[in-house]
Amino acid sequence: MKLVPDASGEIPREVVFKQLCKAFNKSPFFKHCGMKMRVEDGVIKGFVDMDANLVGNVAFQILHGGVAATILDSIGGIVAMGEIYLSGKGELVDRIRQVTRLATSDMRVDYLAPGRGKYFVATAEALRMGRKGCTMRMNLHNDENKLISTAIATYVY
Amino acid sequence: MKLVPDASGEIPREVVFKQLCKAFNKSPFFKHCGMKMRVEDGVIKGFVDMDANLVGNVAFQILHGGVAATILDSIGGIVAMGEIYLSGKGELVDRIRQVTRLATSDMRVDYLAPGRGKYFVATAEALRMGRKGCTMRMNLHNDENKLISTAIATYVY
Amino acid sequence: MKLVPDASGEIPREVVFKQLCKAFNKSPFFKHCGMKMRVEDGVIKGFVDMDANLVGNVAFQILHGGVAATILDSIGGIVAMGEIYLSGKGELVDRIRQVTRLATSDMRVDYLAPGRGKYFVATAEALRMGRKGCTMRMNLHNDENKLISTAIATYVY
Amino acid sequence: MKLVPDASGEIPREVVFKQLCKAFNKSPFFKHCGMKMRVEDGVIKGFVDMDANLVGNVAFQILHGGVAATILDSIGGIVAMGEIYLSGKGELVDRIRQVTRLATSDMRVDYLAPGRGKYFVATAEALRMGRKGCTMRMNLHNDENKLISTAIATYVY
Repeated sequence: MKLVPDASGEIPREVVFKQLCKAFNKSPFFKHCGMKMRVEDGVIKGFVDMDANLVGNVAFQILHGGVAATILDSIGGIVAMGEIYLSGKGELVDRIRQVTRLATSDMRVDYLAPGRGKYFVATAEALRMGRKGCTMRMNLHNDENKLISTAIATYVY
Repeated sequence: MKLVPDASGEIPREVVFKQLCKAFNKSPFFKHCGMKMRVEDGVIKGFVDMDANLVGNVAFQILHGGVAATILDSIGGIVAMGEIYLSGKGELVDRIRQVTRLATSDMRVDYLAPGRGKYFVATAEALRMGRKGCTMRMNLHNDENKLISTAIATYVY
Repeated sequence: MKLVPDASGEIPREVVFKQLCKAFNKSPFFKHCGMKMRVEDGVIKGFVDMDANLVGNVAFQILHGGVAATILDSIGGIVAMGEIYLSGKGELVDRIRQVTRLATSDMRVDYLAPGRGKYFVATAEALRMGRKGCTMRMNLHNDENKLISTAIATYVY
Repeated sequence: MKLVPDASGEIPREVVFKQLCKAFNKSPFFKHCGMKMRVEDGVIKGFVDMDANLVGNVAFQILHGGVAATILDSIGGIVAMGEIYLSGKGELVDRIRQVTRLATSDMRVDYLAPGRGKYFVATAEALRMGRKGCTMRMNLHNDENKLISTAIATYVY
């Protein structure tokens, strides 16, 4: 990912978000699942349309839990990366290194409602941004804005 | 899934396991990820070959965390179903209903080592089999028998 | 716990909450930790004053993580009980049985900030109320309204 | 904690373990719960006797879940500290700094059986020892060697 700082030495928010989305949208498994990152209302969100390939159990026609886990893990990671870039803490080069190294340490997903819907939207918020790791909360809603699953994860960098 | 009891009123272990594998191997997302359930050494195991589609980050060529989450969730579910069938507790018809209804309530995955390998094998064991739910532990090893990730989940039925 | 329904066959909200607090405030370990349940702003909250006995590490003078876990587990349980009573679902006698049987299945606690403060307040909200179990989210804030830790747990009944 | 290296520049295993136990046994909340760390069979274990103060619900006479969480969090931390000291990785002074800084990031506890018994023993094993954090698995057994609860946690240092 190429992130060129502006005159202030920082990278503008929109540029950071766009570049992160571009990078995630190239992730093979993310693409394989038909998922897409996009900036909406000034924040990064993950989108996935319901698809026959994503069903867990044909009898119920609901998303496989692994689909939710995949998009929740990804949205937590990308939003954390944005937070690191825009934190203004430390040198930009160090923040870029942290973003490159960022990896999920552990994640808990709670399945709250059956994964039914035309499409699903994943969002994330930072609960803790530490020097070596962070804690993120993620949510997955369907097209009727029903909360399908929620997750909490720690990422290390 | 058709499970016909033998003269003793119970279904033989091998039949249960084969039928469960057959059902899971039809799950669209499970198939989409190239995953397969198989009986090995008398227990059900989940298998997935490394594939370009399953990579999370091309720079590192490691499995997306969602791939691990998908196979871990599935192996926990199928092994729990086998335990319910073979428990001998309650009427067979009630156990079949429980298996049909079984759903993941929540799962925690810990990523212990980068998801590198030629193929990956998922296994599960029951930690608690209750009347309404169970707690399962799952592991994912690579072809060199390195533990890649471990999970613990509760399923309700 | 004695819960006598009124003319409508239901127990008024304030009575339910008061009775639940009374019962929890008799729990030996809860008392041993100096914790107290109380209705505030129409909801049940858990309170604990900082105390020399609750410190984990004398060098840092912060709460032991187990103190947070104890009050978070308890507030999740009591708020879930209130939800069951007031749900209006099923016969009152069945709801009372569920409340009596309610037990924590699993809980994840995330420690977000050092446990410093004069006192701490625990709150909970229901994310999912099922027939056999529920998912609760709990938070622990200090006297400056800083979020110290958050938890998510499933309870069975 | 004073840890003086021997001629080889390292601290002998027994000395490390004894010092760690000594430090934990001074922790106010740990003492308040009647818990004790001790070396047994060459590893550090946590012990707690059943006590009226540790009961969650008088009707059932079982341990409060917070008691299990407290001893599981502590045993995971102390065993992780031992691993760091004895790893031989990096300078001893750096390892001492890591041990001093070690804090629980998040923990999941699964309650597998009612907390009944005369006494309880907590053990821990390292699943992953990283540069900045580790993943530990912890178990709590009763005096009849029944597994009461299991936990998995990440610690940062």
